[in-house]
Amino acid sequence: MTPEKLALTTNSRARKPRSVGVAGHPLAAELLARLGPKKVLHRLSERLNYRYDAIQFGVTPLCVVLPESTEDVVTAVKVARGAGVPIIGRGAASGLSGGVTPLQESLVISFTRMTRLEVFPQRREAVAQPGVVTLQVSEAAKPHGLIYPPDPASFRTSTIGGNLGENAGGPLCFKYGVSGDYVRALEFVDAEGEVHRLTREAYDLAGLLIGSEGTLGLITEATLRLTPPPRYARTLMAHFAEVGQAAEAVSAAIAAGAVPAKLEFMDRACVGAVEDYLHLGLPREAEAVLLIDTDGDDLDTVEEERALVERACLGAGGVVRRAQSEAEGEALWRARRSISPALGRIRPQRMNEDIVVPRSVLAEVVREIRALGDASGLHLVQFGHIGDGNLHPNILFDPRTESVGAVHDLAHEIALVAIRHGGVLSGEHGIGTMKRDFMRDAVDPVTLQALRDVKRALDPAGALNPGKILPPEEESSHAHP
Amino acid sequence: MTPEKLALTTNSRARKPRSVGVAGHPLAAELLARLGPKKVLHRLSERLNYRYDAIQFGVTPLCVVLPESTEDVVTAVKVARGAGVPIIGRGAASGLSGGVTPLQESLVISFTRMTRLEVFPQRREAVAQPGVVTLQVSEAAKPHGLIYPPDPASFRTSTIGGNLGENAGGPLCFKYGVSGDYVRALEFVDAEGEVHRLTREAYDLAGLLIGSEGTLGLITEATLRLTPPPRYARTLMAHFAEVGQAAEAVSAAIAAGAVPAKLEFMDRACVGAVEDYLHLGLPREAEAVLLIDTDGDDLDTVEEERALVERACLGAGGVVRRAQSEAEGEALWRARRSISPALGRIRPQRMNEDIVVPRSVLAEVVREIRALGDASGLHLVQFGHIGDGNLHPNILFDPRTESVGAVHDLAHEIALVAIRHGGVLSGEHGIGTMKRDFMRDAVDPVTLQALRDVKRALDPAGALNPGKILPPEEESSHAHP
Repeated sequence: MTPEKLALTTNSRARKPRSVGVAGHPLAAELLARLGPKKVLHRLSERLNYRYDAIQFGVTPLCVVLPESTEDVVTAVKVARGAGVPIIGRGAASGLSGGVTPLQESLVISFTRMTRLEVFPQRREAVAQPGVVTLQVSEAAKPHGLIYPPDPASFRTSTIGGNLGENAGGPLCFKYGVSGDYVRALEFVDAEGEVHRLTREAYDLAGLLIGSEGTLGLITEATLRLTPPPRYARTLMAHFAEVGQAAEAVSAAIAAGAVPAKLEFMDRACVGAVEDYLHLGLPREAEAVLLIDTDGDDLDTVEEERALVERACLGAGGVVRRAQSEAEGEALWRARRSISPALGRIRPQRMNEDIVVPRSVLAEVVREIRALGDASGLHLVQFGHIGDGNLHPNILFDPRTESVGAVHDLAHEIALVAIRHGGVLSGEHGIGTMKRDFMRDAVDPVTLQALRDVKRALDPAGALNPGKILPPEEESSHAHP
Repeated sequence: MTPEKLALTTNSRARKPRSVGVAGHPLAAELLARLGPKKVLHRLSERLNYRYDAIQFGVTPLCVVLPESTEDVVTAVKVARGAGVPIIGRGAASGLSGGVTPLQESLVISFTRMTRLEVFPQRREAVAQPGVVTLQVSEAAKPHGLIYPPDPASFRTSTIGGNLGENAGGPLCFKYGVSGDYVRALEFVDAEGEVHRLTREAYDLAGLLIGSEGTLGLITEATLRLTPPPRYARTLMAHFAEVGQAAEAVSAAIAAGAVPAKLEFMDRACVGAVEDYLHLGLPREAEAVLLIDTDGDDLDTVEEERALVERACLGAGGVVRRAQSEAEGEALWRARRSISPALGRIRPQRMNEDIVVPRSVLAEVVREIRALGDASGLHLVQFGHIGDGNLHPNILFDPRTESVGAVHDLAHEIALVAIRHGGVLSGEHGIGTMKRDFMRDAVDPVTLQALRDVKRALDPAGALNPGKILPPEEESSHAHP
């Protein structure tokens, strides 16, 4: 991997924003004329903010549209296509894989003003525009005794549109499924500016849109399934002297029939980072910490399931702490949710992986990745939704003093560990630009070609979020069907 | 709708099998040479059986291959493509929408010999070839304390490949999800004979294959998610003097927080048909019968949920019968599973719809369809997974004495009732040929074009199961992108 390919995993471009004379760019002028000044950002100072996600930097967009309706999106798409400018949809930009960072001068459509949300309690559905903040769906549903389960760590800021674009998961996904599992219907605007309304029938085009990072269409409305929340939840923390013990405890608990609502893992480096940040009294000396919730409608069953998980942890040699109150449980979960800000204090940049491996090989995978990290001399932490086998090895680095090429090489080696053990590259963060080049390792060439064919079918000109998910085509494989 | 379009909803072709001289057809000769005589059926008497599903008749295939491995499938696909012959994948042919009935002379690939099944208890997964009978997955998993929840009524005969092709549902789907929700990975052979292995990452090509009725590829292996079964289940039957009362009971129970495992509806005509067949003592005088299971790991909670459903039924004016034993519960469910054979006794043919409507309009939809049925003079029964709003209006007819055109018109009117009330055409049976022409009502032209573009991307020559799902293209909309 050459350093050129890495441009977007560093903030090197951030220090040299491209200062094209854009106020007068014909795209901006036409959008201003069609949508009015309130919905169009064209000044460089405004546009600069739209070149990043939570980790990566890209190219400053030519123009930003803040649509208030599907019609505005249609207008923006048609104007951009007319001008030959690529189009990137964007939510809260809390993504971790570069899904919304422009790779070239583009129109960014930022959905933050499309926030209409309606709850239909009898149908157990919410209809949300893409700019609705994820947590607000549950908050609006709560008075009706319903929730929207998907809970990415960013759910206080991330949006439904962004979550669907990346098919985001979260701790609850082990028991309750990922964002896409809650979608009953979608409205989207295609690359030509045509509006489509989809249910989940054959062909499941909605399912294809979900997780496609805005490369196949722009989601402008989603009908989401709501569920009654479990009445009770109980929290347990366990720590272990070895990573293998934690993995063994997880396997034993699941084999015994436990289906915890959440089942999270943090390694020693991760616990240390959170502890330095929040001083919660976490066990710094442990090699592995598990954070586990059991939930359900019957308190006895919930307690029984927690006891079962507890026995599995003790049996594997763990030390167990039961949360004695809801407040204590909440504090422990704050530790998990604070990993991202805690890591941000250690180095200015990070490469956040999102591999998923069979649970049976977890201990081995964690150890192999730890060894790779130690050998590299880079700062590596591991955590993740261990119940699903979803691990987030994070490489923390400072591009001013550490080799970005070495970071990319380590990230690639980690991806290869996952693939070698029968795993996949992304559980919930998407591919974006960050893992795009690894797709060649994860997907065989003939299947990659099928993915390209699908992309070409829905976006023949490659106008939607170009350069994401699919690695650049080799010259020789350019044969169109 | 012209009678020509209906050819496949009747058995008129059955009486005139096309007697092409096929034993010597070059396709059969080449397949025999490549695969050997045990895997190739080429005699007319053998091929005749492969022109139907559970309801519809099609054209007798040119040749039938019974592959024993993915390599055999690859060979068959390549030979058929070389000969310019379309290819149709087929499981147990228990489908209800014409998904496997050939519309032209074709190669049928019947997966009944690809029955390898492995259970991986620690990963909670089963790896199944497409010919594995659905129920066998749960039976193989049971010793490990696991089940495979999808339970189409045909699950004693239908196959995993067929279930995935139609994305089949069943009573348990209300609580546990449809077939596709349990797929972690797929292997499939594409229209060129290339083998692909997919997980559920972006783009979710696996999700696109599921429910595509073999029109985008042939599934040759599926990795299925298994779950621990609930420890307890309780059954309740309720009957009502009016359909509206049953719908009201369902809404009240769900609004009160009940999530029954199964929630089934039968109308008076349907109960009468089953009672004539099995003499179970069902309430013939009722306009609507509900059959409800609650389940879970805690008996108190399961009983409590049943009591909640019972109160909702009584509150809506229903008469309630609790199953006092597992055997009694099993007998009641036998009534539900016997609907198909019971209806088969009344008329030789039927048109089985599969609409899904919002629960809030269920009573109105059932009444409107009843009125259409009465006005038509045709024999109409209604039943279905009412918890999901999934209704199966069935038109029973004898093509020798009743107008097939009138049947098709009634079916179309029923589809329009569903669409008018915000519903969709297919919950679990697929589109096939039976509802193909209604897709023009259900999907707007621009989205239909997007579906065609996806089909063309994966099967440019239209070699896979041609004529299914997508209605024939109008001459004027033939513009390729």
